[in-house]
Amino acid sequence: MAVYTDISEAELGAFLAQYDVGDLQSYRGIAEGVENSNFMVHTTTDQYILTLYEKRVNADDLPFFLGLMEHLAERGISCPVPVHRRDGAALGTLAGRPAAMVTFLEGIWLRRPQVTHCAEVGRALAEMHLAGEGFALTRRNGLALADWRPLWEKSRSHAADVEAALEEETESLLGRLEVEWPRDLPQGVIHADLFPDNVFFLGDRLSGFIDFYFACNDTLAYDIAVCLNAWCFERDRAFNVTKGRALLNAYNAVRPLSDAETAALPILSAGAALRFMLTRLYDWVMTPEGSLVVKKDPMEYVAKMRFHREIRAATEYGLDR
Amino acid sequence: MAVYTDISEAELGAFLAQYDVGDLQSYRGIAEGVENSNFMVHTTTDQYILTLYEKRVNADDLPFFLGLMEHLAERGISCPVPVHRRDGAALGTLAGRPAAMVTFLEGIWLRRPQVTHCAEVGRALAEMHLAGEGFALTRRNGLALADWRPLWEKSRSHAADVEAALEEETESLLGRLEVEWPRDLPQGVIHADLFPDNVFFLGDRLSGFIDFYFACNDTLAYDIAVCLNAWCFERDRAFNVTKGRALLNAYNAVRPLSDAETAALPILSAGAALRFMLTRLYDWVMTPEGSLVVKKDPMEYVAKMRFHREIRAATEYGLDR
Repeated sequence: MAVYTDISEAELGAFLAQYDVGDLQSYRGIAEGVENSNFMVHTTTDQYILTLYEKRVNADDLPFFLGLMEHLAERGISCPVPVHRRDGAALGTLAGRPAAMVTFLEGIWLRRPQVTHCAEVGRALAEMHLAGEGFALTRRNGLALADWRPLWEKSRSHAADVEAALEEETESLLGRLEVEWPRDLPQGVIHADLFPDNVFFLGDRLSGFIDFYFACNDTLAYDIAVCLNAWCFERDRAFNVTKGRALLNAYNAVRPLSDAETAALPILSAGAALRFMLTRLYDWVMTPEGSLVVKKDPMEYVAKMRFHREIRAATEYGLDR
Repeated sequence: MAVYTDISEAELGAFLAQYDVGDLQSYRGIAEGVENSNFMVHTTTDQYILTLYEKRVNADDLPFFLGLMEHLAERGISCPVPVHRRDGAALGTLAGRPAAMVTFLEGIWLRRPQVTHCAEVGRALAEMHLAGEGFALTRRNGLALADWRPLWEKSRSHAADVEAALEEETESLLGRLEVEWPRDLPQGVIHADLFPDNVFFLGDRLSGFIDFYFACNDTLAYDIAVCLNAWCFERDRAFNVTKGRALLNAYNAVRPLSDAETAALPILSAGAALRFMLTRLYDWVMTPEGSLVVKKDPMEYVAKMRFHREIRAATEYGLDR
């Protein structure tokens, strides 16, 4: 929730002069996003989001992220589109950091999404998965199964401070995932972080996806599992099967799930819950007191891990079969 | 540099329904302003700044602030203008806080203002002082001379941690101000916080003033003294007399200074330096480590106190006489 890097009007003016976007009218730091510094920029022609990539983002990954948004937008997916400089580049430098401008996407992220929004997300996720086909660049998932144990080892000794049973439960689930994780499901480009704050709506209509900075090549159905975790639980941590049904069936109507994908949903969902529990736990125990980073409670995802552990079939999430 | 209060789309939608501003298209928290929560709001008709007044602002003062912006705008001063609800009110409630929407003002605040900008500020400040005449509401300055000693007493015991001589210097200056402070100079509505981040420019042209949340009735020339401190020193803390000359003469051309005002500029400027030193010192020693509030170095204003102490006449600031 912070702008990490401030920029002067002279720096920004020189940066914008490389683009064909008119003259600067105003810019404001946006108090959203924890990885990068974001500014809303108005020029005489349009408005844009300017992102300065801070050190948590690997600059080598930026061509993948920017290229993906462009690839998806060309195929009808609503998302921010990188603006190219006069020399053709989509990536520049500002205040010593890699920087890019993307088009401004109207829409609101929903603090309390309802069933109808879950259906919209399911449909749009399937459309994004189909549109991702043919994208030339690849990026491995930096938070895939193989990365979970090293991450776990870094915060494991603090797990008992969060919840007495957490160490044993995590060990048990991680061990099972390492044995049973499905490896031959359909692959493709996934968003990998499609939480409500990354999906915009205008009224009840989904207006676009943002924040592709975890996107990668991985199991498509894992992206659905992330969404089940992110969209279909209530604030009391109870799974809302009506939301699950809406999301899964809307997805399935656009990109029908194979039997293998359907069968794998419970384990993929448990894995997704573990992945977010692990990063939250790590931030929870490692972030210095008083840091600008807003820490999210890992216990929310511990509850989800427990829920998925008891699921035996995707029909229990609401998928019609 | 933070949004303190997040708002849901449902809350905001209900709030906006009281206005005649079209449908909500997007809103983003702005990472500027330390007193309140600010959002940039786009609707189908226009864009606005929405402010939620947090507890550091006294709700009883809001009619003054909002009314002043309206009064000034009606008299040709460029500033945000409160948007009225259908029932006529400019002030509403959102997320349990007083809240208002104002028009969006294009422009950029200058991280490194130049001489030409100082002249613009001087001219526009004088125009604002003239335009403030006839404003019906009044508000006493909450950080006037009488408030400085109580504020000083709260952080005095920490002064030596900042600078060895600070306690003695502050005592000496404060004692002198209490005796010599001019009390019969022309009064009016002053901005009282016209720092570069509260003045917008489009190119080299001043496009407006923002953030009237310290505005009050006080000595007009004190507002000039605040600006001398805020605009005419370089980063190495040296006074730039070329900037002082530009600011003062541009002001004087619009609203000629009386001899008494001219003679009082050194003591008013020393007082303004003390006032900002005191609030910075207080924040410096009282803000908990790791707070979201960005602490500003009080030593910058200690240096300015020392500078003004040696000034004998306004001509030394650059005023033509």
